[in-house]
Amino acid sequence: MAEEKALIPRSEDFSAWYNGVVQRGELAGYSPVRGCMVIRPHGYAIWELLQSALDARFKETGHQNAYFPLFIPESFLKKEAEHVEGFAPETAVVTHGGGKKLEEPLVVRPTSEAIIWPIMADWIQSYRDLPLLINQWANVVRWEMRTRPFLRTLEFLWQEGHTAHATEEEAEAETLLILGIYRSFMEGWMAMPPVTGVKAEWDKFAGAVRTYACEAMMQDNWALQAGTTHNLGQNFARAFDVKYQTEAGAHEYVWSTSWGVSTRLVGGLVMSHSDDVGLVLPPKLAPIQVVVVPIWSSDEQRAQVLEAVHRLEQRLAGRVRIKVDDRDTLNPGAKYYEWEGKGVPIRVEVGPKDIAKQQVMAVRRFTRDGRRKIALPEGEAAARLPEMLEEMQGELLETAVRRREENSYRGITDYEEFKRIIAGPGGFIYTGYCGAESCETRVKDETKATIRVIPDEDFRSDSFPATCVCGGKASHEVVWARAY
Amino acid sequence: MAEEKALIPRSEDFSAWYNGVVQRGELAGYSPVRGCMVIRPHGYAIWELLQSALDARFKETGHQNAYFPLFIPESFLKKEAEHVEGFAPETAVVTHGGGKKLEEPLVVRPTSEAIIWPIMADWIQSYRDLPLLINQWANVVRWEMRTRPFLRTLEFLWQEGHTAHATEEEAEAETLLILGIYRSFMEGWMAMPPVTGVKAEWDKFAGAVRTYACEAMMQDNWALQAGTTHNLGQNFARAFDVKYQTEAGAHEYVWSTSWGVSTRLVGGLVMSHSDDVGLVLPPKLAPIQVVVVPIWSSDEQRAQVLEAVHRLEQRLAGRVRIKVDDRDTLNPGAKYYEWEGKGVPIRVEVGPKDIAKQQVMAVRRFTRDGRRKIALPEGEAAARLPEMLEEMQGELLETAVRRREENSYRGITDYEEFKRIIAGPGGFIYTGYCGAESCETRVKDETKATIRVIPDEDFRSDSFPATCVCGGKASHEVVWARAY
Repeated sequence: MAEEKALIPRSEDFSAWYNGVVQRGELAGYSPVRGCMVIRPHGYAIWELLQSALDARFKETGHQNAYFPLFIPESFLKKEAEHVEGFAPETAVVTHGGGKKLEEPLVVRPTSEAIIWPIMADWIQSYRDLPLLINQWANVVRWEMRTRPFLRTLEFLWQEGHTAHATEEEAEAETLLILGIYRSFMEGWMAMPPVTGVKAEWDKFAGAVRTYACEAMMQDNWALQAGTTHNLGQNFARAFDVKYQTEAGAHEYVWSTSWGVSTRLVGGLVMSHSDDVGLVLPPKLAPIQVVVVPIWSSDEQRAQVLEAVHRLEQRLAGRVRIKVDDRDTLNPGAKYYEWEGKGVPIRVEVGPKDIAKQQVMAVRRFTRDGRRKIALPEGEAAARLPEMLEEMQGELLETAVRRREENSYRGITDYEEFKRIIAGPGGFIYTGYCGAESCETRVKDETKATIRVIPDEDFRSDSFPATCVCGGKASHEVVWARAY
Repeated sequence: MAEEKALIPRSEDFSAWYNGVVQRGELAGYSPVRGCMVIRPHGYAIWELLQSALDARFKETGHQNAYFPLFIPESFLKKEAEHVEGFAPETAVVTHGGGKKLEEPLVVRPTSEAIIWPIMADWIQSYRDLPLLINQWANVVRWEMRTRPFLRTLEFLWQEGHTAHATEEEAEAETLLILGIYRSFMEGWMAMPPVTGVKAEWDKFAGAVRTYACEAMMQDNWALQAGTTHNLGQNFARAFDVKYQTEAGAHEYVWSTSWGVSTRLVGGLVMSHSDDVGLVLPPKLAPIQVVVVPIWSSDEQRAQVLEAVHRLEQRLAGRVRIKVDDRDTLNPGAKYYEWEGKGVPIRVEVGPKDIAKQQVMAVRRFTRDGRRKIALPEGEAAARLPEMLEEMQGELLETAVRRREENSYRGITDYEEFKRIIAGPGGFIYTGYCGAESCETRVKDETKATIRVIPDEDFRSDSFPATCVCGGKASHEVVWARAY
């Protein structure tokens, strides 16, 4: 049972608040293995909802799941020069198996391109086998030094898509299709509206031609890179000799992509919506959407109240993920505290007075207007509760969009102003950009802000300043922010 | 595209036949990592169906999923003496991370007791926190020397349940509850009826007090250990100091269990039902239950046939997993060959002659009576096809039960007869048993048969011989077989 103690507020220490929400919500915990978290049942249930919604979208668009080995022979990782440079320093390496030293060390996958392509090369003979659209749900390991639950862990769970196409255009279209799926999922399910765009040349995935990203604004106005899609060109096809026979009989390298989102999304969900009381979950991703707490002070009342409560449960079964908390070992106040911390969107209280009035009290976890508690006539509750969940889902998204826009600054040219914003409220700063890596390096050293993306059309300003924050000539627009 | 070549028949070389079915069905393939398979999309889709059916049963019975670290510090594995003795010789060990040698090597989990209990110990304070019912879907690694797709691989996917209880009786009840879930799943979904029972003392899980197993008979009359549940007593609670406060205020060790099934089940499915043509799948676990192959020889016919085919698809949508194979690049014969090899239970052929007769031709992948091809009036097809799938599911189970019974031998006392059966047709041999490990060792050395289980009540003979096969006095009955 959680002890009732207040969280450190967001305004005081965002990072401590985050850890507090994760702990109070029983989402994850530390483990005896450095940098590895344990995902607790409530956190895992959220991940399962995320997974199943995304998996359905991948399958609708023709992707199939498969499973590839956890281990990558070290020599395979080295076949794509940029890839190994990016990943080798952060790998975990198996040197012994079955009591013996291995002839060749095995790397625990940090991402699977280097084991997937040598295998999928055999699945592709002709243009008829393309496109090949594969996804894998798996664990990966990256030897991170500073870790935080969900946001950055040594081992994490993710999905990684790997696709092969006959043409460059099809690979690019796939990269954008998935970026769109990620974006609409983050908006429609997570109520976490990202800005999408292209990563700078020096910030792309190791081995990619082009990387697109979803960058979502957290409540501290920092950016969270929440999902990426990579156009890999023919880089991996050349490294692993993945060719197909064209209709005309020629042999050509395939064009490939990869893309992924991870358990990091759960961290993003926490930092997007939760408050100083604890976790707030968008109803679509809440393992329990409605918790019903019966209230009684005598055995007679208990029977009467439980009867009403189970009537309501039956009416909502199959339409809403509902739980009746009829534990005898806790008083109602302790139950309220527990479910608030776990982010249950609506709590329904039913006591003798409510029964007398033929009503139930519905208490929403999040409201924009502060009117949290509403009496619902018993006959209307079954219809109203699903509507209330939809309303809450919509309001969470609107609130997040408004927060993002209120903390976005466009057309900034004055570097001093730029620094004031980053040091002060923080936010997404849209500026003109000269295109030089050295310019970003300087800004990063001085302010810790980095270029998140060159924004996509939907996010681009109508026009951008002709001058970069460094004073040089701007060639395009970029979005800057402090980032996780 | 698969080349049309015949499989080696079961009667000739069962092992080569198995590999052929797995390959023809595109279920799995070898990988460049010794002993690690790649699960191809069709094989993975079967695993997903298995997973989701089992997961629903676990959740219905109050279990919650969570996720624990892949790595186990070497010192943790050593805390339970029998456990480390059983597993240490077959572990993969990470000695380097992030470019540096680790202070303490990390073992890639072969099973998770040694990392789960130190973590879950913190989740348990009082009797109110019990029972704690946790399950994990994960990959594990055991350094096997001789591997075969699905049946024995270095890395495999599985679920591992881990539960804590206040009393010995509750732990035993959990062990039996899950054994029952496994058995009814294997019967009802896989049409693979196992014999259940207790493992001999020297054959139980490393660290368990008692191990129960499901032993299914494959078509070569060998046994496949398809699932196990372990009553761990207080062994792991003592090793990892997992205590709870009783209602009276005392501090006691919890009683724990663990249980698992793995991707091995897919291998069992193959060896239970498939024939010399290729894969046969029980409809409940077939990713595609009905494949529709349109037949045409002119564009006009094509349009007409496709219209009828899509009409049928719409009628069956949501009730049956149906796929219309309207590829222009393959002729109908090649399509039949492909879907037969993938074990699609029913193929529906629709050509111009069928349209003229307002019918479709349904061809079942498996029948007991040889009547594979049935003309269905178009108006009845939508109702008949789901019924045909149910009939096939039932007939597969009946066939498997009959096969098991026909190849079970009860009341065997003569060791020469025992040896003849094992060397000849093979099967499950029920005998009286003296209880000595040395007796099993001798029989195993001489015949390669091992004791599978002491059978549960449902499988026990009405009476068993008073003499063991070794000639000694029998104290109970056991089931012998060659086993995977």
